[in-house]
Amino acid sequence: MQRRSFMKNAAAGVAAATIAAPAIAQAPQIRWRCSSSFPKTVDTIIGAGELFARKVSEATDGRFQISMHAGGEITPPFAVVDAVQQGTIECGHTAPYYFFGKDPTFALDTAIPFGMNARQMNAWQIEGNGLTLFREFYKAYNIYNIPMGNTGAQMGGWYRKEIKTLNDIKGLKMRIGGFAGAVLAKLGAVPQSLPGGEVYQALEKGTLDATEWVGPYDDEKLGFNKVAKFYYYPAWWEGGAQIDLYINQGAWDKLPKDYQAIVESAAGLAHTNMLARYDARNPAALRRLIGTGTQMRAFPTSIMAAAWKAANESYDELNKTNPRWKKIYEDYVRFRDDQIRWFRVTENSFDDFMAEVIIPRRASSKKG
Amino acid sequence: MQRRSFMKNAAAGVAAATIAAPAIAQAPQIRWRCSSSFPKTVDTIIGAGELFARKVSEATDGRFQISMHAGGEITPPFAVVDAVQQGTIECGHTAPYYFFGKDPTFALDTAIPFGMNARQMNAWQIEGNGLTLFREFYKAYNIYNIPMGNTGAQMGGWYRKEIKTLNDIKGLKMRIGGFAGAVLAKLGAVPQSLPGGEVYQALEKGTLDATEWVGPYDDEKLGFNKVAKFYYYPAWWEGGAQIDLYINQGAWDKLPKDYQAIVESAAGLAHTNMLARYDARNPAALRRLIGTGTQMRAFPTSIMAAAWKAANESYDELNKTNPRWKKIYEDYVRFRDDQIRWFRVTENSFDDFMAEVIIPRRASSKKG
Repeated sequence: MQRRSFMKNAAAGVAAATIAAPAIAQAPQIRWRCSSSFPKTVDTIIGAGELFARKVSEATDGRFQISMHAGGEITPPFAVVDAVQQGTIECGHTAPYYFFGKDPTFALDTAIPFGMNARQMNAWQIEGNGLTLFREFYKAYNIYNIPMGNTGAQMGGWYRKEIKTLNDIKGLKMRIGGFAGAVLAKLGAVPQSLPGGEVYQALEKGTLDATEWVGPYDDEKLGFNKVAKFYYYPAWWEGGAQIDLYINQGAWDKLPKDYQAIVESAAGLAHTNMLARYDARNPAALRRLIGTGTQMRAFPTSIMAAAWKAANESYDELNKTNPRWKKIYEDYVRFRDDQIRWFRVTENSFDDFMAEVIIPRRASSKKG
Repeated sequence: MQRRSFMKNAAAGVAAATIAAPAIAQAPQIRWRCSSSFPKTVDTIIGAGELFARKVSEATDGRFQISMHAGGEITPPFAVVDAVQQGTIECGHTAPYYFFGKDPTFALDTAIPFGMNARQMNAWQIEGNGLTLFREFYKAYNIYNIPMGNTGAQMGGWYRKEIKTLNDIKGLKMRIGGFAGAVLAKLGAVPQSLPGGEVYQALEKGTLDATEWVGPYDDEKLGFNKVAKFYYYPAWWEGGAQIDLYINQGAWDKLPKDYQAIVESAAGLAHTNMLARYDARNPAALRRLIGTGTQMRAFPTSIMAAAWKAANESYDELNKTNPRWKKIYEDYVRFRDDQIRWFRVTENSFDDFMAEVIIPRRASSKKG
């Protein structure tokens, strides 16, 4: 009996192993490499990537590991699309508008001048047609895209001299790229493309008149306040810049369904957290900058209006020549206008009242 | 040899079973029940709960199932805290301010009059002290809390007559609860507590003068536009109402770490999605309401200012009597004021410019 029972137990052991097998098969060990386009110093963006990777690891009990790499570590910062497309790396974390040169359509997945703010962009991506349209667009790049972060409305950058009229834009040598640079060029500015490490010196020497980067928290670390006195707002070209997780389509397709759900959920968590980090850290940074003598300035309405006109001319031109752009842009703009008509009613009027009671107008107009 | 090898294989089988055992132990079958405080018709909120449960199921390959129940199905809508606290259900999905009567401190986890908007609330919860303070607060209720959804700034409700001065508030019978009701009572209104199903008839008969609910998308379904002509904004008492996932502390502690990470990530995804749903669906609903003759009205500044004063008086009183409130409120308000000083600079000025070009002021002031 005892031997028989031993045999039965052994058989049960084998059976248990058989039952366990699917569970093991469903939980494979996977390692991915993910390259950012950003340097380590941009700890809000890098931090969101790290949070994402940590949550994926925790959710799979360490079986799915994604190593996050700052721009340049394993892939040049702006080679992320190529590397993900070719499968050199399984994923990347980048601002799509960096790839404006490949196709301006990329910009609609981050920010375009006078586009949507962060919340409106979420609504378009998640509940409007945004994500569907971009999933289709990225097929040509062998990429599966997931929104993973937003900076919120950015600052309009650092200027050595005040910008009072359109004349002050003429000949302005500003470090700014993509669509914003193209629109500013229409107004007479001379957009410059300089490696990040050279901007400070160029501003100091005066070979550069202005630069833009993100907002108080990121800008402060680069020390631009020491070489340019005037800090302008808003960045009409970035009312909210979305960052994406790009996944090689083959790598995505090979993931078990449970890992796909884990990736989507962890990216969703990181998406909100990045914006929260920016929002939480910007106020103190702004106060410190003002404490060093930084002068806050709103862009004059005349310049905003001229930029609005120039931007729309650019969009009209693209609508005629780029069908990929046209298809997504038309949906984007229809959604944006709808959002603004609604936000204007209760969201903005709530915000405006709060600003009015917390920062009475006289104090506010003194400040900026 | 063959028998030996058989024995070796059998031993290997047992070893495999042993190795597999932890994987099986880490992936237990779990079933939770989650009760909402909302009816099925509030499909934005219910939908976020369902998305959460679906993602948890997908991420665990169906091993962790959470059944979502509309308010009343398994627990009365406002018994969610008690039921989660006692462990009758493992989790609930509710608006904390419904439990204002237990302790007004709950309201700080949803919305208070003149509080933070949705994005500012996220920043406070995730990157400020909000989540930490509330994790501590909820210990007394045996609850582990996770933010899971926000409505955005709500509408100020439906009124049978125009509200032009503070005199129009005196004696106003309005269906409104919690803090907002208390503040309105200070201004002379008579807050009413009526079951949802009776509000329409009471408004029609005129035994009720006004009611508030959420915003265009939810309000339209209740048909208030047919019995009250004036639709006011903003709900100064709800600049962004957060919804929470409440988990029984014991149930949370018993979850394996990987399931905890899955719950947190899926809740993070659902958090953003709920707001996106509201933002995406409100504009068309508002258009339809206006199409039926609804008249949009902004609350007069005199009423907003009086409510602001009355709200702050309430807060001062609570600071003196409720140490739990005081501790969280002081942190909340400091963070709010900081957020508003920053949002005022670039976020609001971007939004304001966009509203100006999309809805030129004359058209806008005609509309409401």
